[in-house]
Amino acid sequence: MKNFMDKDFLLETPSAVKLYHDYAAKLPIIDYHCHLSPREIAENKTFSNITELWLYGDHYKWRAMRSCGVDEKYITGKSSDFEKFSEFCRIMPLLAGNPVYHWSHLELRRYFDCELTINSKNCEAIWNLTSEKLAKEKLGARDYITNSGVTLLCTTDDPADNLRYHKMIAESGFSTKVLPAFRPDKTMNIDKKGVCAYIATLSESTGVEITDYDSLCAALEVSLDRFEALGCKTADHGLDAFAFANPDPYHANEAFKKALANDGEGITAQDLAIWRTQMLRFFGKQYVKRGFVMQLHYGVFRNPNKTMFDILGPDTGYDTIQANNCITDLACLLNYLNVSDALPRTILYPINPADNAAIGTLCGSFCRGDGSGMPTVVQGSAWWFNDNIDGMETQMRSTANLASLGCFLGMLTDSRSFMSYPRHEYFRRIMCNLIGSWLERGMYPDFDYAAELVCRISYENTKNYFGFDV
Amino acid sequence: MKNFMDKDFLLETPSAVKLYHDYAAKLPIIDYHCHLSPREIAENKTFSNITELWLYGDHYKWRAMRSCGVDEKYITGKSSDFEKFSEFCRIMPLLAGNPVYHWSHLELRRYFDCELTINSKNCEAIWNLTSEKLAKEKLGARDYITNSGVTLLCTTDDPADNLRYHKMIAESGFSTKVLPAFRPDKTMNIDKKGVCAYIATLSESTGVEITDYDSLCAALEVSLDRFEALGCKTADHGLDAFAFANPDPYHANEAFKKALANDGEGITAQDLAIWRTQMLRFFGKQYVKRGFVMQLHYGVFRNPNKTMFDILGPDTGYDTIQANNCITDLACLLNYLNVSDALPRTILYPINPADNAAIGTLCGSFCRGDGSGMPTVVQGSAWWFNDNIDGMETQMRSTANLASLGCFLGMLTDSRSFMSYPRHEYFRRIMCNLIGSWLERGMYPDFDYAAELVCRISYENTKNYFGFDV
Amino acid sequence: MKNFMDKDFLLETPSAVKLYHDYAAKLPIIDYHCHLSPREIAENKTFSNITELWLYGDHYKWRAMRSCGVDEKYITGKSSDFEKFSEFCRIMPLLAGNPVYHWSHLELRRYFDCELTINSKNCEAIWNLTSEKLAKEKLGARDYITNSGVTLLCTTDDPADNLRYHKMIAESGFSTKVLPAFRPDKTMNIDKKGVCAYIATLSESTGVEITDYDSLCAALEVSLDRFEALGCKTADHGLDAFAFANPDPYHANEAFKKALANDGEGITAQDLAIWRTQMLRFFGKQYVKRGFVMQLHYGVFRNPNKTMFDILGPDTGYDTIQANNCITDLACLLNYLNVSDALPRTILYPINPADNAAIGTLCGSFCRGDGSGMPTVVQGSAWWFNDNIDGMETQMRSTANLASLGCFLGMLTDSRSFMSYPRHEYFRRIMCNLIGSWLERGMYPDFDYAAELVCRISYENTKNYFGFDV
Repeated sequence: MKNFMDKDFLLETPSAVKLYHDYAAKLPIIDYHCHLSPREIAENKTFSNITELWLYGDHYKWRAMRSCGVDEKYITGKSSDFEKFSEFCRIMPLLAGNPVYHWSHLELRRYFDCELTINSKNCEAIWNLTSEKLAKEKLGARDYITNSGVTLLCTTDDPADNLRYHKMIAESGFSTKVLPAFRPDKTMNIDKKGVCAYIATLSESTGVEITDYDSLCAALEVSLDRFEALGCKTADHGLDAFAFANPDPYHANEAFKKALANDGEGITAQDLAIWRTQMLRFFGKQYVKRGFVMQLHYGVFRNPNKTMFDILGPDTGYDTIQANNCITDLACLLNYLNVSDALPRTILYPINPADNAAIGTLCGSFCRGDGSGMPTVVQGSAWWFNDNIDGMETQMRSTANLASLGCFLGMLTDSRSFMSYPRHEYFRRIMCNLIGSWLERGMYPDFDYAAELVCRISYENTKNYFGFDV
Repeated sequence: MKNFMDKDFLLETPSAVKLYHDYAAKLPIIDYHCHLSPREIAENKTFSNITELWLYGDHYKWRAMRSCGVDEKYITGKSSDFEKFSEFCRIMPLLAGNPVYHWSHLELRRYFDCELTINSKNCEAIWNLTSEKLAKEKLGARDYITNSGVTLLCTTDDPADNLRYHKMIAESGFSTKVLPAFRPDKTMNIDKKGVCAYIATLSESTGVEITDYDSLCAALEVSLDRFEALGCKTADHGLDAFAFANPDPYHANEAFKKALANDGEGITAQDLAIWRTQMLRFFGKQYVKRGFVMQLHYGVFRNPNKTMFDILGPDTGYDTIQANNCITDLACLLNYLNVSDALPRTILYPINPADNAAIGTLCGSFCRGDGSGMPTVVQGSAWWFNDNIDGMETQMRSTANLASLGCFLGMLTDSRSFMSYPRHEYFRRIMCNLIGSWLERGMYPDFDYAAELVCRISYENTKNYFGFDV
Repeated sequence: MKNFMDKDFLLETPSAVKLYHDYAAKLPIIDYHCHLSPREIAENKTFSNITELWLYGDHYKWRAMRSCGVDEKYITGKSSDFEKFSEFCRIMPLLAGNPVYHWSHLELRRYFDCELTINSKNCEAIWNLTSEKLAKEKLGARDYITNSGVTLLCTTDDPADNLRYHKMIAESGFSTKVLPAFRPDKTMNIDKKGVCAYIATLSESTGVEITDYDSLCAALEVSLDRFEALGCKTADHGLDAFAFANPDPYHANEAFKKALANDGEGITAQDLAIWRTQMLRFFGKQYVKRGFVMQLHYGVFRNPNKTMFDILGPDTGYDTIQANNCITDLACLLNYLNVSDALPRTILYPINPADNAAIGTLCGSFCRGDGSGMPTVVQGSAWWFNDNIDGMETQMRSTANLASLGCFLGMLTDSRSFMSYPRHEYFRRIMCNLIGSWLERGMYPDFDYAAELVCRISYENTKNYFGFDV
């Protein structure tokens, strides 16, 4: 019986152990998609207790607590920080097999040198130990990042953002590169109340009066210039359900003007499909021109629980998987971008693991034989609800079967937390265990090539694919 | 090489062995959803040979036999009981990996102390041994139940049922609690020929003249009172494909009156969606008021083979998985019930394993932080076609990844057979093996907590979730 | 650590080793569906280098190379054969876990006695060794077939084909039976430009003037007679997405005449659904009458990348999985055929592995208790994108859980390459490993029965199901 989460955690063969410790563990981290706050990095935010770090903003943990019937007052309510932590500790043993279980223990170990098991019995000891360490060492946001060996990270930023925190970080001499990533979802979702206020903000931020499709594009170009000037290398889109529409610039423009006239009211599904297809063509062309990688996250059904949405707002642990795959629509989109010279390097992230095979083949259908040494379109790492041992292994096996595992881009945190970097360690262990098992079972011949795969997937591929200068 | 189905069957590590034998195996069974006949329990039905027990009503076995090209005369036809059993024995070795293979052998071992392997060679010996035992011991329906350690079971009953067999059982002093469960599918499916006769029966059974939505509800309340008085704690719905419709009580009522006027003819898909949504709101409110758990089984395409349906009727081994997931419709339903104070504790059973992840996240989106210590909405145990080693393990891993395995409700038989209780043993072995493997691999730290998980999933969670008084 | 792909490759237990070497490996091959060229077999085509054999026509390898960002000039372009092979060798180590990796090494070993690992370092050695062997031994198409132990294979042939190469092969005394298989897709897809030319060709080939549905059927009967006379035992359909329509012979006929009048233009989705349903009824009746097995391959989204389709045409590595399962439509089709006495023995091949469970149950819903000893409708071996270790094992587990693994038909190559027979070896190893693991784990009792399963799945079932005279 192995010890709980010891140094060879998840490494089940000698080959896996060697691949991880001699190769994967030694490489730094590029976190090419996360939701860290540039402001908190710029201001080097500090935290005074483990609840602030773990429970103030982590909807994974909130969802897990609700799945155990914890009272909401201990989740997002008015209980004290210690009470909240205490409830979290109490339900932890019920989360056997849940990634939150492993992540939390890894975080305690890596950031606090604390090997205690999280449960009611150890609650107070963990609380005290972590509080003391936080008080003594005054660890700030940047410390978590640098202590984790992160050489570069990309935040997620709105086109209307003036990026002043990014400028502050860049000027501060922080050793980790912190780049903005362009996330223009609000220009895509013109059916949402608030679109007028948003467009006004974007107008102001860019100095371009926006009245129609053309002026919107002009404003976005100003914004894209600003992002590019700060080293931006990627854009990200949250497509939720995506419907392709045959291109119709006139209709698209009319839909936009209707949205502006009625603050999103009256926008039909057809309007939205035409608008979003049109905009993705614009964005695609811009990304090709600027060498940006386009990331497409799709398939989430957001906020199905209206009661809780009205109370807590979005991103609070109530989203679900929309099992309405969009393979045909995505295929039409990729084809349309491709024939329009508007298909940049693209990463597809499906939220439904049942779509892995379809997405794996779709990627292959739009890889250009371009001599670049990397695929044009590639499936991203297991996303969100799939970010667990089974999900990661399934995605890697699917990529290996259907494409090239050696060109896989590996892990990103997608996280709002400064303590989430052990997820890269978790991923690398799982990846080394998979490749190591192939060596041990006579399915792959050569340790040196396996080590090269590990290095590529841990670090090199991401660097090359995005063109990061690290 | 392990012996075939020995005492450590499916238990592949020392931890798994200990968890199973020291904990899981010692706990009694609550079978919270099955299709046993209350009459046969009340009358303590006896069986004179293994064919009566195994092959008279088990559509799993019929399907398996047809998959081997057995002649229908040996399945549902006029061959002798011995001939039927003989054919079943003959094809058994072809069913390697099929749950029927393991279930049948477990049943022989647990109820007949017979360790013979089922095949042509042993057919006659098994026939004789079981026939003798049946003749000698005169085992009745109740013996199978009590010998299996069942403390409580819920049958599946129509609202029009007068529950007299349940009263007989309750008055008989039978040591196992036998509770009715409320299954009002016939009031939902108003597009089916026969709805008028059914409504007349319900009317008579409740003493309420039913002419419209309101009087139907009044009749159902009479029925629900009757169920509740006999200790009922749960209702069950077979939704097949479910389409949500925006609430429209007027339209719903008109649809019902149209159904009554034409015995279901002319009911459109839209009528049906509106009616069923309306009814589920009524039922949800009733269940909340009465503290019933609502079980939703969905996704089956029933009776696609019209030829055989005309000959043999429903539930004869011809159903299939309808791969038209209903995630969006179910999400809308749960939200509608939730905002209407009509969302009771709910168990979702998808029939398509490809929907596991979507359902797992959907459950989480409607769990209230209610302080009850259990989830509001939870995925049920692997159902029907998924009730096998792969299906059960996949469902448990999905629940662990996406929710809380520690709050999982564990096994139910869903069976029409008095000999199906070894399926609980089968499940518990698989569950202990999974949790045991996590201990062995350093993925879970603590045997005592693991043992607590095993006890919760085997028994305690079900008791608490339903509020069973055992 | 096992040696790379040694004699016990993929055989992980003593039982698996024994099942494979003592049983599976000794049986010949029936390849009941492939895309070999009858002409190349008739003419006993020879190859002068490994690039001709491996890279001239294999879209699996092209796709893999594009997934590694190889320049198209080395894939389908004008580079020299050696340069192409060199690029293929270079990217091979990146394909860890991909079936192309294992297939290629198996082919080198089995056809060239070459145990070198494929990579840049060994590129020249492999090139030289294989070129010399090809020059010296002058191996022709037939040698690859006979050296692989193939007793019978079925090619894929158009109804308009005069089958003269099949006649030549039959008359040549070639020891392997080479049978045509009937693939009438072009008569189904009347929405495609070119339908007029095709119908003219079919007319000429059969001597029947085709002007409407009835005369088309008459022509197809002439063709079917020709196929049957040459020993044909099976027909194959590529349905891509399949939509069922209620039968309407008048509309079907009108749709066909419209297609002929406008060369496919103006055919609506409804026209196509009605036409294809009508035609499948005709074909089904013919197959029942002639004792043909019907193979249905469905779910592919062909040629989504229009740019590359215009350059390279179909079957060049750009197809994708259409995640629009057609379960309801297929169920309606099978029922319609069944009530029309037009449901022959049928093999269903879904392309999306997410559909395995639904298809597994659908097959069971249309198995007749016919006493034939084999299922009427059966899921085929893991197809195309699923033809890898995970895909094959998943399909076999699904068949075992939902139907009868003992009646499974086993492997086919579906290949255009004369060197693809080691895929049967690959499959048999995986199958023996699965069944062997059940023996070792005490899940199946009896080695002799396991050996019988292995023989059935490797060879006997196919022979019996198709009625091949070998």
